[in-house]
Amino acid sequence: MTAHEAYESLKQHAREVAIIDSCSGLLGWDERTYMPRRGSQFRAEQLGYLAGLRHEKFTSPQFGELLATAESDGFQDQPESVEAVNLREWRREYDLATKLPKSLVEEITRETTIAQGVWVEARKKDDFQSFLPNLETVIGLTKQMADAYGWEGERYNALLDQYEPGAKTEEVAEVFTVLRKELVTLLGKIKDAPRKPNTKIVEQAFDVEKQRVFGEMVCRAIGFDFSAGRLDITTHPFCSGFGIGDTRITTRYNPNRLNDALFGTMHEAGHALYEMGIKKEDHFGTPMGESVSLGIHESQSRMWENQVGRSKEFWTYFFPMAQGIFRDALSDVALDDFYAAINDVRPSYIRVEADEATYNLHILLRFELERAMMRDEIATKDLAGEWRKRFEEYLGIPVDNDRQGVLQDVHWSAGLIGYFPTYSLGNLYAAQFFAKAEADLPNLKAGFAHGNFEHLLTWLRENIHVHGRRYRATELAQRVTGKELSPQPLIDSLNTKFGAIYGF
Amino acid sequence: MTAHEAYESLKQHAREVAIIDSCSGLLGWDERTYMPRRGSQFRAEQLGYLAGLRHEKFTSPQFGELLATAESDGFQDQPESVEAVNLREWRREYDLATKLPKSLVEEITRETTIAQGVWVEARKKDDFQSFLPNLETVIGLTKQMADAYGWEGERYNALLDQYEPGAKTEEVAEVFTVLRKELVTLLGKIKDAPRKPNTKIVEQAFDVEKQRVFGEMVCRAIGFDFSAGRLDITTHPFCSGFGIGDTRITTRYNPNRLNDALFGTMHEAGHALYEMGIKKEDHFGTPMGESVSLGIHESQSRMWENQVGRSKEFWTYFFPMAQGIFRDALSDVALDDFYAAINDVRPSYIRVEADEATYNLHILLRFELERAMMRDEIATKDLAGEWRKRFEEYLGIPVDNDRQGVLQDVHWSAGLIGYFPTYSLGNLYAAQFFAKAEADLPNLKAGFAHGNFEHLLTWLRENIHVHGRRYRATELAQRVTGKELSPQPLIDSLNTKFGAIYGF
Repeated sequence: MTAHEAYESLKQHAREVAIIDSCSGLLGWDERTYMPRRGSQFRAEQLGYLAGLRHEKFTSPQFGELLATAESDGFQDQPESVEAVNLREWRREYDLATKLPKSLVEEITRETTIAQGVWVEARKKDDFQSFLPNLETVIGLTKQMADAYGWEGERYNALLDQYEPGAKTEEVAEVFTVLRKELVTLLGKIKDAPRKPNTKIVEQAFDVEKQRVFGEMVCRAIGFDFSAGRLDITTHPFCSGFGIGDTRITTRYNPNRLNDALFGTMHEAGHALYEMGIKKEDHFGTPMGESVSLGIHESQSRMWENQVGRSKEFWTYFFPMAQGIFRDALSDVALDDFYAAINDVRPSYIRVEADEATYNLHILLRFELERAMMRDEIATKDLAGEWRKRFEEYLGIPVDNDRQGVLQDVHWSAGLIGYFPTYSLGNLYAAQFFAKAEADLPNLKAGFAHGNFEHLLTWLRENIHVHGRRYRATELAQRVTGKELSPQPLIDSLNTKFGAIYGF
Repeated sequence: MTAHEAYESLKQHAREVAIIDSCSGLLGWDERTYMPRRGSQFRAEQLGYLAGLRHEKFTSPQFGELLATAESDGFQDQPESVEAVNLREWRREYDLATKLPKSLVEEITRETTIAQGVWVEARKKDDFQSFLPNLETVIGLTKQMADAYGWEGERYNALLDQYEPGAKTEEVAEVFTVLRKELVTLLGKIKDAPRKPNTKIVEQAFDVEKQRVFGEMVCRAIGFDFSAGRLDITTHPFCSGFGIGDTRITTRYNPNRLNDALFGTMHEAGHALYEMGIKKEDHFGTPMGESVSLGIHESQSRMWENQVGRSKEFWTYFFPMAQGIFRDALSDVALDDFYAAINDVRPSYIRVEADEATYNLHILLRFELERAMMRDEIATKDLAGEWRKRFEEYLGIPVDNDRQGVLQDVHWSAGLIGYFPTYSLGNLYAAQFFAKAEADLPNLKAGFAHGNFEHLLTWLRENIHVHGRRYRATELAQRVTGKELSPQPLIDSLNTKFGAIYGF
């Protein structure tokens, strides 16, 4: 078999794996949207079967042999070619999938399932101690996993690399430290600011059906294609793509607050626009038909949510329509007051409810703690205390209980260490990409005020989406913006924006 | 390997096949309910992949060997035992799946796909001639398929047996002939009857959302468990079960007629009650966890639709509620007039819109024609003419065009010959089972008038559902009712009912 034949065979093989994944994707979507309650046990069996099937197919010795044969060719002479990119990424995924001993995978699956159950109860009862033994087990297994993957520099690199391929903990930490200091300063200025938004404006009764209509109108305006997607309701909003021509998002409606569903919808629509922009017709089933990383994915969702949806220009266009739809609530409100209200900043305990300015502090805290655990600088038993100490230091409010503190997220019980930083990387990349888009397209924001979002989408398609997984995140940022990942664009944009709103 | 070990291995094997089928089931449900338009091409690829996977698993030589080993044991000494039943049915399915040469399967798939496309256009243009060449090809391939399966008596037996295992064409034809004559006579009496229902009562504006509320209330009352099922909207209503604890039905709403959605919903709910009643927790993935045949499945849907939903007692209970919900339309209507209106009989052209009395004539016509084609007694080219002739003879109205005649159903273009009779077998079994239930439970119908549908459901569960595929349909009828399949219960019940309504 020639290298080219092996490559074609790998493509076929990988497409099968991707089809299996797309079936799991639909089953998972249905589980969260429409499945009747009593179907859940059997659904777990279906998903388990498909997961086993995909693992078996992807880690088969045959796949490994094909990969070795294909790699023997000179594809790598042109490292940006479709073939070289796909082989590079298949190699990475194959090694990741085959490096862990089966016994460790099974132990992790078993222990994280147990730990999640214990975590649910512990959070309910605000009892960190009852969760501690399980958390210690999971942390221990995570270290074993990182060591089995192998790492350079520090152990956390192996974990971060799962979600953000190629990212280096040391570099990320450097950027995050600058960001943290600047955000704490910004928060201080906001606290002492002379002006305060009137948040009552967005905290009124907003009819859910009207919210849905408005949200769908916004989605369509920014480029979400409803003939290739859907918007449904779930407790925890998400975006899920099922192969070609079918990308679905969900949201949840708060009948007494406008922000939640609207910005949640725009966030998920941002993820969807990325999925819709990747050239899946050509590359489905191969890395070239997939997204770069969680961080880059999040940069797309955050950009549409924050840089677009929370901008003055966006509302210059949409506020009159919102006034027409939500007449009782908004008829007598001025645009400036509305704009300030949706951008209100105030420290709060729960990450997923945090605003644009404080959100990253929640993440940086988690990153610091999990990194320190992996470096054995913090013992798991000291985690709750360490959380309270740093939280008050960064956010300026004391943590009264662990339910609103260290117990709030599912991630650690599920063994997802190294995942949190991708949220802030997303915010950083979003700001950095958007600054470049503004430089490339001088009338970009002015266009928002006239309902033109196409220029931004086209720019994103051409600069980011079309490449699939051709470049790693850091390399993509360098190529697109001409600069390494930097905290400055985000810091600058937040200071400018909130300076104007809060008058400092 | 012992026979018992082989049996256990078969069970595991069959469960995998059933899980794959359940994934296909959900993908198919989603395709018809919520999938965005542009996802259809990829959905076909997903379904094709899963179909290939299930075929490969089920027809593997390994499955054949396990089957032979398991059969070597004395399971068959107790032919009603779970093991004997499962082995009997696996053997039947395995032989069916492996008897056709691959080339023939591929040719049928290809030609029926083409034929369906041509049929859609031919129906649109009312042009039977343009469809004829494709129909001839499909009919020819169907004969080849029947011959490859093998048959005794006549060729049609091999086709009927696919959908109604064990049914004999000759016996079915005998029952159908009696039924046809009686129905033509009944139709004549109705035509000359002194009283006519006022159909305007059900042909008014009925708010769709209220119809949905009423329909769900009815479903719940007859035993549909919404914690293990759903009701959604599709163009063509259907029922689909996805393994354990998840059985979904669909309906469509006509805003200007009450009957369509309501009886359609009850029909599908009847299918669902059967699926929910089979002991899948114990037998999922094996024939004991599956339904007997299409005919028996249809008997359950028809019974809830006709014997229950179109009965006077049902409406004694539900009409006051319907009046409360549809106040504008029904406030001033008397129960007797409403009951007559929902039971209106009039010959019409389209099978799926036919009423309880004329429906079977549509089926018997199709059965006669397809049987005659398989016996080479009618040439395909004469089909349209033969249709018109017999239709007018049975239904008493002339067929003006083939769109409302021979071109109306998808079945023949899809190669589904032998499928139609199961609809009428369902109606016959429904009447025969219901007559026995009434004999066993003397207050059965009186109970309907007080909202008690549980006695009937329990009777069906105990006599039919619980057995899975233990008995073939004819055997089940014999065991439950003490009689062979007979046209008499259906004929008697229709004569009694319509005699009362039409006054003859």
